[in-house]
Amino acid sequence: MTKKNAFYAQSGGVTAVINSSACGVIETARKHSDAIGTVYAGRNGIIGALTEELIDTNQESDATIAALRSTPSGAFGSCRFKLKSLEENQREYERLIEVFKAHNIGYFFYNGGGDSADTCYKVSQLSEKMGFPVQAIHVPKTVDNDLPITDNCPGFGSVAKYIAVSTLEASYDVRSMAATSTKIFVIEVMGRHAGWIAAAGALVEDYGIPVVTLFPEIEFDQDKFLASVDEKVKEHGYCTIVVSEGCHWPDGKFLAEQGTRDSFGHAQLGGAAPVVANIIKDALGYKYHWAVADYLQRAARHLASASDVEQAYALGKAAVEKALEGKNSIMPTVVRDSSRPYQWHIGEAPLSEVANVEKMMPMDFITEDGFGITDKCKEYLYPLIKGEAYPTYDDNGMPEYVTLKNTVIEKKLPPFEL
Amino acid sequence: MTKKNAFYAQSGGVTAVINSSACGVIETARKHSDAIGTVYAGRNGIIGALTEELIDTNQESDATIAALRSTPSGAFGSCRFKLKSLEENQREYERLIEVFKAHNIGYFFYNGGGDSADTCYKVSQLSEKMGFPVQAIHVPKTVDNDLPITDNCPGFGSVAKYIAVSTLEASYDVRSMAATSTKIFVIEVMGRHAGWIAAAGALVEDYGIPVVTLFPEIEFDQDKFLASVDEKVKEHGYCTIVVSEGCHWPDGKFLAEQGTRDSFGHAQLGGAAPVVANIIKDALGYKYHWAVADYLQRAARHLASASDVEQAYALGKAAVEKALEGKNSIMPTVVRDSSRPYQWHIGEAPLSEVANVEKMMPMDFITEDGFGITDKCKEYLYPLIKGEAYPTYDDNGMPEYVTLKNTVIEKKLPPFEL
Repeated sequence: MTKKNAFYAQSGGVTAVINSSACGVIETARKHSDAIGTVYAGRNGIIGALTEELIDTNQESDATIAALRSTPSGAFGSCRFKLKSLEENQREYERLIEVFKAHNIGYFFYNGGGDSADTCYKVSQLSEKMGFPVQAIHVPKTVDNDLPITDNCPGFGSVAKYIAVSTLEASYDVRSMAATSTKIFVIEVMGRHAGWIAAAGALVEDYGIPVVTLFPEIEFDQDKFLASVDEKVKEHGYCTIVVSEGCHWPDGKFLAEQGTRDSFGHAQLGGAAPVVANIIKDALGYKYHWAVADYLQRAARHLASASDVEQAYALGKAAVEKALEGKNSIMPTVVRDSSRPYQWHIGEAPLSEVANVEKMMPMDFITEDGFGITDKCKEYLYPLIKGEAYPTYDDNGMPEYVTLKNTVIEKKLPPFEL
Repeated sequence: MTKKNAFYAQSGGVTAVINSSACGVIETARKHSDAIGTVYAGRNGIIGALTEELIDTNQESDATIAALRSTPSGAFGSCRFKLKSLEENQREYERLIEVFKAHNIGYFFYNGGGDSADTCYKVSQLSEKMGFPVQAIHVPKTVDNDLPITDNCPGFGSVAKYIAVSTLEASYDVRSMAATSTKIFVIEVMGRHAGWIAAAGALVEDYGIPVVTLFPEIEFDQDKFLASVDEKVKEHGYCTIVVSEGCHWPDGKFLAEQGTRDSFGHAQLGGAAPVVANIIKDALGYKYHWAVADYLQRAARHLASASDVEQAYALGKAAVEKALEGKNSIMPTVVRDSSRPYQWHIGEAPLSEVANVEKMMPMDFITEDGFGITDKCKEYLYPLIKGEAYPTYDDNGMPEYVTLKNTVIEKKLPPFEL
């Protein structure tokens, strides 16, 4: 086997555990130094490959790489940059392969969601045609949990745990205050197209909390919603509402785009939570509080799910191992064997079946009234938020997250215009 | 010593650790069953005393009471209900004492902020005059950290830890994304009058994060603010902004009251964070994300400060012990002996010096430019966020928070109109 270098890049929105996958890739590659030379990481994702900004991960100690397992965010930088289709912009793909060739890169590990799976697939195909075959393996990552075939996606479990726990805590708070003050608590969560994260908030129902959940899958029915909230306040004295940022009116307009204007007439400031809170206040008169978790939810490594951290690592590790077995154009997956006890193993899916396929939340995961989740959904979710995997903390009381040196190697090619 | 019962109530906004104080009060009282009979808790705070809704805490097992130490919110219910002055409404104070007399309550433990310290003080004075002397001890609690004499207030340390850690995590996230996407992250924190909580967010500066903090103590200077943000983005590629909900314009108007109106012309939806984010977007064009933590911050028992949990308990315990020593009309306090290593002991303050005094953040805690914190402030803050005190989690991956039975005893007095 000729010794080749590897390239690893992080793509799209980052998560609490994407660095755990990076850790799995790099540690496993280091264990196979007979077959894999240096792991280069793309500075700011795939852009780093196009501009030939390759980070030499050998400049980082074993201890630093190990610390990636408990550091949130994308340690090498990520990017929102979707390569155009091969027809539209073949030169970008060709450039990638030229860079790989210039640095003797035979393994391409791309850590991202659906778009990056597609890029990965094309690199594999084109590199073969161009006579410098690169083994392209996709490492799944997305808080949106929308990749096909795999049971779940690394990143989702930790967001789900954070939202479930935070919703429970804030619900206890409003329950304490409801007699004389706040009766409504609204939390807005991520998920523009699918209600996976909102579903995690709905788990608090199992812990005695009256909760109404608004999914992007269900058109917002204001009257039905208000009736449901009012019923819960009348019975329990308070109500929690979990609203997905993707919740929308029957005409498709997001709740967050309610046409709000500031004093200068500028368009809305965003946020479905304040819109929902005001709808309730106007119709029912209840005092409210609202929160928008935004990045806090996907960055919350302090409350990561142990299942999630472990799977993120295992998928990074499997990517390298499968590459060394000669696999190409695949994505390692999580295959669930049983929910209770939670058992899973690593499988694999061909990228041709992953690219451009979006997995939606099954409709039998949402209750008939559209405001809650079914037992089937709960059985799916709980294993994913199971276990705690705390970072260590320093003497100040702050988490010990690592920042890499990110040393870029010397370029060999002429510059490339993005 | 004649055996008397005790009354305990939670007041105002609840915290991640107020139940730890309740635990300290009840466990210590149980250890002195020779001197203290039953601890009754007010259902929904002081209102429960006025309406004679007294919860019998003896209905809860030792294990349940112990679990209060790691349960956020107010387990007996709290209330936003300020007793009027003695002159305006003496009948409310007289009613309290009648209820205490009817149930042989000789100890009054009131767990709250400045207002409740004042109530506690008056109950002590009036009960003496009415010939049924009640020993009134105030147990400090407030995320606002604004009680005088005590070095800090239980509840604050845990919010501070949550905000410091969450701000760090979200800053790592935006740092990953900044090359092609979000360059600005704005987090809004509590603190209408004082910038203590915002100061905790500013700690991330020590961890390499470019951060601009907006305190309620400093009038908002838009030009200076934008210049500071722009400088940081130009140097680091991104910038984090911590904004206190109390941040205001020179004319005193809160940033959150920017005159925002929805499509129906209703007044603003609230939130200083989206206002700040839009000011930056309009002037500098940077892509932003924003979060409003709201109740999530004060309920986040999952990331409580170990110092805070321990002090909350110790102050509850000390309240009972001091009562048994014959003390009256006092508040146990935290006295700091040293910051590094962090050492403290319990002291006490007369309620006459606590009631109606608000402790502001010292101006030498804020940097000269008004956008950061000084070393002196950091030395004050770090000990308060030191250590982790995790709750236990169940098999689903959810925290094991306790919900009490809250059994109310039979009333002995005629009803009372609030």
